[in-house]
Amino acid sequence: MKIAEMEQKFPEAFKQFTEVCSILENHYRDMQDMEFTVEHGKLYMLQTRNGKRTAQAALKIACDLVDEGMRTKEEAVAMIDPRNLDTLLHPQFDATALKSAQPIAQALGASPGAACGQIVFTADDAKAWKAQGKKVVLVRLETSPEDIEGMKASQGILTVRGGMTSHAAVVARGMGTCCVSGCGDIAMDEANKKFTLAGKEYHEGDEISIDGSTGKIYDGIIPTVDATIAGEFGRIMAWADEFRRLKVRTNADTPRDAKKARELGAEGIGLCRTEHMFFGEGRIDAFREMICSDSVEEREEALEKILPMQQSDFEALYEALEGYPVTIRFLDPPLHEFVPTDEADIKKLADTKGKTVEEIKNIIDSLHEFNPMMGHRGCRLAVTYPEIAKMQTKAVIRAAMNVKKNHPDWAIEPEIMIPLIGDVKELKVVKAVVVETADAEIAAAGSDLKYEVGTMIEIPRAALTADEIGKEAAFFCFGTNDLTQMTFGFSRDDAGKFLEAYYESKIFESDPFARLDQNGVGKLMKMAIDLGKGVNPNLHIGICGEHGGDPTSVDFCDAIGLDYVSCSPFRVPIARLAAAQAAISRK
Amino acid sequence: MKIAEMEQKFPEAFKQFTEVCSILENHYRDMQDMEFTVEHGKLYMLQTRNGKRTAQAALKIACDLVDEGMRTKEEAVAMIDPRNLDTLLHPQFDATALKSAQPIAQALGASPGAACGQIVFTADDAKAWKAQGKKVVLVRLETSPEDIEGMKASQGILTVRGGMTSHAAVVARGMGTCCVSGCGDIAMDEANKKFTLAGKEYHEGDEISIDGSTGKIYDGIIPTVDATIAGEFGRIMAWADEFRRLKVRTNADTPRDAKKARELGAEGIGLCRTEHMFFGEGRIDAFREMICSDSVEEREEALEKILPMQQSDFEALYEALEGYPVTIRFLDPPLHEFVPTDEADIKKLADTKGKTVEEIKNIIDSLHEFNPMMGHRGCRLAVTYPEIAKMQTKAVIRAAMNVKKNHPDWAIEPEIMIPLIGDVKELKVVKAVVVETADAEIAAAGSDLKYEVGTMIEIPRAALTADEIGKEAAFFCFGTNDLTQMTFGFSRDDAGKFLEAYYESKIFESDPFARLDQNGVGKLMKMAIDLGKGVNPNLHIGICGEHGGDPTSVDFCDAIGLDYVSCSPFRVPIARLAAAQAAISRK
Repeated sequence: MKIAEMEQKFPEAFKQFTEVCSILENHYRDMQDMEFTVEHGKLYMLQTRNGKRTAQAALKIACDLVDEGMRTKEEAVAMIDPRNLDTLLHPQFDATALKSAQPIAQALGASPGAACGQIVFTADDAKAWKAQGKKVVLVRLETSPEDIEGMKASQGILTVRGGMTSHAAVVARGMGTCCVSGCGDIAMDEANKKFTLAGKEYHEGDEISIDGSTGKIYDGIIPTVDATIAGEFGRIMAWADEFRRLKVRTNADTPRDAKKARELGAEGIGLCRTEHMFFGEGRIDAFREMICSDSVEEREEALEKILPMQQSDFEALYEALEGYPVTIRFLDPPLHEFVPTDEADIKKLADTKGKTVEEIKNIIDSLHEFNPMMGHRGCRLAVTYPEIAKMQTKAVIRAAMNVKKNHPDWAIEPEIMIPLIGDVKELKVVKAVVVETADAEIAAAGSDLKYEVGTMIEIPRAALTADEIGKEAAFFCFGTNDLTQMTFGFSRDDAGKFLEAYYESKIFESDPFARLDQNGVGKLMKMAIDLGKGVNPNLHIGICGEHGGDPTSVDFCDAIGLDYVSCSPFRVPIARLAAAQAAISRK
Repeated sequence: MKIAEMEQKFPEAFKQFTEVCSILENHYRDMQDMEFTVEHGKLYMLQTRNGKRTAQAALKIACDLVDEGMRTKEEAVAMIDPRNLDTLLHPQFDATALKSAQPIAQALGASPGAACGQIVFTADDAKAWKAQGKKVVLVRLETSPEDIEGMKASQGILTVRGGMTSHAAVVARGMGTCCVSGCGDIAMDEANKKFTLAGKEYHEGDEISIDGSTGKIYDGIIPTVDATIAGEFGRIMAWADEFRRLKVRTNADTPRDAKKARELGAEGIGLCRTEHMFFGEGRIDAFREMICSDSVEEREEALEKILPMQQSDFEALYEALEGYPVTIRFLDPPLHEFVPTDEADIKKLADTKGKTVEEIKNIIDSLHEFNPMMGHRGCRLAVTYPEIAKMQTKAVIRAAMNVKKNHPDWAIEPEIMIPLIGDVKELKVVKAVVVETADAEIAAAGSDLKYEVGTMIEIPRAALTADEIGKEAAFFCFGTNDLTQMTFGFSRDDAGKFLEAYYESKIFESDPFARLDQNGVGKLMKMAIDLGKGVNPNLHIGICGEHGGDPTSVDFCDAIGLDYVSCSPFRVPIARLAAAQAAISRK
């Protein structure tokens, strides 16, 4: 029976029902999902609860409730589940087309959004096809840092191996690109550019669709529609900004990401990973030459080639940020991530360096590490090769001075962040290199540029000795991805092998890489803040791990008094809302 | 001029000199190294200082000073540098033969003592040649856990790669076997069993001598002499035992090591690494079958074959310890350390399991880890494969009951130690398996055996949450090798690449794997003790990392109130002396 029929058939009951509705909605001050029955003309209310709703509907209801004077703005902000916003920020499958589609497989929804396109098997193909105006989905066993450019060129990424925290998943979330990972059902034959799934053989150019929210994979093309940021969304965000104490920055390495993040409300860059800049066209060759150099002079010569490119990258970032702060992290990954793997590239490098292929291969072999995550990386690179830190300092300082020249009203004050510090003496050594280089650049240019040197807190020992490190650092930024790895003693690349058993045994209730472990990692963070501020009350402190975009973790960051959280561009609205809710709950 | 001449030529000055000698030696209460001159019959004393001495001489002087009433026993114990004892505990080159020998190369003295013998290139050859009564020196690029048996069969070990904390170095020190590591001058050709060094080509069977104290390598045979533990050594050790508060245990996996350690004064086993037991003849095959099993039943079947062997290993250990405590650590390394690498072994395994070589290789590949140190190991194995922990529990409990039957007067109370705990829930899950299995065994045998379940503290998070873990653990044992790795965020296998630069930049003054980092790692240890004892005052606490045999670290362990240190058998006397000195200094 429709509600209109009820009014005619049981007018008394209907009148009573509308009264009860209004009492209940006034009482709960939210849209109600009610069950009732009418027997012998008498109304019986059976149950009532707050109505479930889509993200879009939730925003509309919250705004309506404010407009109707039922809720304050503060209450409206507190009503929205920040997790739900995720779906509003990515393309979705066209609802009608989706209804008639049958999934052929299901894997992990590793990065939300929907994507459709032609299958390619390599990052290079993805770039080439994109350049030809084609839409592609990159399908790989797993991805590596060399694939970044190809991942950017793809509508979506599908991997055979890897969990929610695999390289593909993490990078895709960072880019806001749809990703389905860990599809073990795929029988992959990368060498011959084909795979079998659900009994069908797929080749390069075949069409496929994937849903990074549900993890579902579909044969053929399901058209996608871009999500719109409707009026209510903007209103709620504006209200959220009125209440939050935490600043929200973004993790962005490119002007494109930075602009997107600014549109979504980011108030600065909390983490610019410079290594991604080394993989670009023209740079990777020079960087490989540096790696295979025999002397400081040779290394400096190779780095000299990268300097202008890196400088113009930074200039573009400063332009995109329009005076908002930019934290630039110096080179972090181990050098073996940059060496060539295919024969042609090795030969090319050998020719450039005047070495034999054998010699280049020996250098590559010598870079092998047993535990790369705990190897020769981060500030350890700057200690052994200070010339890298020098080049990066020059690039940052020159870029900042140039952009400031064009925009004297922008408050540009570079924040140089040294990764993987575990001992104050490491920071002293690297900071000395940075300061000497920066001061010389500034003096030579007759500039009055100010800059800050700070550090990541991502090694347990850095947190434990923050009373020493705090004396030398202008700021701390918690790298909670690494800090979680070291504190738990497991690598996120390998944890997939046992985490399932940990959930089954109820040892873990959530993935510590997705939701901050407040008991352990959080304890180290609190220690670091207390010890650091104890010796340096001006220390500003943020977080730039993936946790910076997780609502529960943002709440914790607010509670322990961080100054800002920094997250992927597409999580900025989530962090803004979560920060507002944290501040409201703490009033 | 000889001193006897002086007496005749300058009798006055000589008389005065002997008086001054006695004044100075009484004043400094130590043997003096004095400089003086006699001019115009007048004595001028120029300088005096405590005389330098060999370890043997130091012991003799200290005993003499006590016998002469110049020093108390306590003072005598405090006079000896524990580091010096190391040379007394290993074979040395015959002094005369050494004089005429010329070193052909110099590398790192990674494990003290001298060795000579015929060159072999594989662990298997070392075992085979040893069985034929030959003395061999194992020369390899680097060693791996598979080489353990061959290392045991060798007089000494020489590696091309690796530093003071490489696998070869650490294991050799543990065994008390001489090792020279990191000899980059060797041009190695392992495949053809030859290498070139100092212009000479060496083949299998050629003779070589190495000195693990100096790192020197010699062509040909220099005979060695066994060090003797002379009377003074024993006296000083006995005095040391009167003063120390810390107990000294040993890290030992075999009855041979355990007996050696008991001779050197160990009061129990602080760490028995059971994984070494899986590499032995007959076990490794069964263990590989377990790894390649498809079901719990198959795994249990394979483990059933290992059970009696592991039980008899434990029985031999309990026999060797004669009622002193034995802490048995359950399986720790990742499974890929156990899989076969050569084709014949893979074929054999495939045949046994009724699988194809391809399938076995796929299983082996699937065990690959990006960061094995932070991978699927320790208690994570027990969570995913509880049947391993069950088998090990049965073996321990049955062994203990059997030995106790023969020696009712021995206080046998197994200490089962769960490695790599990072969260109390992990310990609860694994402990439940252990307790259920142990209690069933004990009940079935009608025994009244008591046992304890404790945990390693080697993951930073375990220290940070020791107030939770302490409620479930009967004891804590600090695994400071891993704890140092995780706290600093670097792996000791890889740190060699940058530690040199760290020493040069004065960031580090000592190797944190050799000398405990009191500022960082030590802070975690103190937290763990405070938090753990806060919830469980009966908790007994020890250390079983390599630091347990380092004098400075032993002093720290005494200061923070540990109950015992555990170290390699050959470091037990050093730890006893260091523990005594720590107690004396703290009086």
